[in-house]
Amino acid sequence: MISPQVKALFEDHKSNFKYFALATSSKEGVPNVVPIGFLWVANDKEIWVIDNYMNKTYANIKENPVAAVYAIGGEGGHECVQVKGAVRYFDFGDDYKAAVEMAHAKNPAFPAKGLIKIIVTDVYDTAPGVHAGEKLKQ
Amino acid sequence: MISPQVKALFEDHKSNFKYFALATSSKEGVPNVVPIGFLWVANDKEIWVIDNYMNKTYANIKENPVAAVYAIGGEGGHECVQVKGAVRYFDFGDDYKAAVEMAHAKNPAFPAKGLIKIIVTDVYDTAPGVHAGEKLKQ
Repeated sequence: MISPQVKALFEDHKSNFKYFALATSSKEGVPNVVPIGFLWVANDKEIWVIDNYMNKTYANIKENPVAAVYAIGGEGGHECVQVKGAVRYFDFGDDYKAAVEMAHAKNPAFPAKGLIKIIVTDVYDTAPGVHAGEKLKQ
Repeated sequence: MISPQVKALFEDHKSNFKYFALATSSKEGVPNVVPIGFLWVANDKEIWVIDNYMNKTYANIKENPVAAVYAIGGEGGHECVQVKGAVRYFDFGDDYKAAVEMAHAKNPAFPAKGLIKIIVTDVYDTAPGVHAGEKLKQ
């Protein structure tokens, strides 16, 4: 479950930093991280991401469908959570079509090749300090 | 080699975004990404990072010493590179001592447990667009 507090951190992060850092890994364990604008909490289980120009991220999630992303926000920007989850990729269906419309409303030049759904499995406290890395109760 | 242009992007990124997204992966390929303040281009081969509160990042680099990080900057903030490299961890030596001093000059409460050196092996163009993911000549 993505709590309302975690959702609020994702909204704070978008306002303050514009991009999210989406991390994936090859099957062999080589990490990859890229800045993503179109990423949001879609419901209480999933984070959705639009694939406009993904290359290595796409290759990684095809062979190793796992992703991680953090959000910074809260009072003074001192809170941070990292979520991890299983990935599913859609280039068909109603949710994908809605994502294409959303991207094109922003800029018709965006290719919106796919919609990534991250089904969140874990949420960690990654605010700097002694509790960094602890798993949050969900 | 880390070019002066790439170095400038890391300086732009620090000014504009405050944090870098440091990505690692477990041996089994589970990605991890956390925000890092103390990260900079130390010379033309290495990026250095101070470990204040690392937990999973530390565990990952001990079993799988590879890391990735991107920097956004340039004209209008439209340039982005991702660097990947091999990781070495130091909690001894002159470079580590200098890193502790640097951290403590900022805030004496920072633990500065270690200094991570990322020996850069690859630089990729990760600016949004059709060239996203291409390896840059170094």
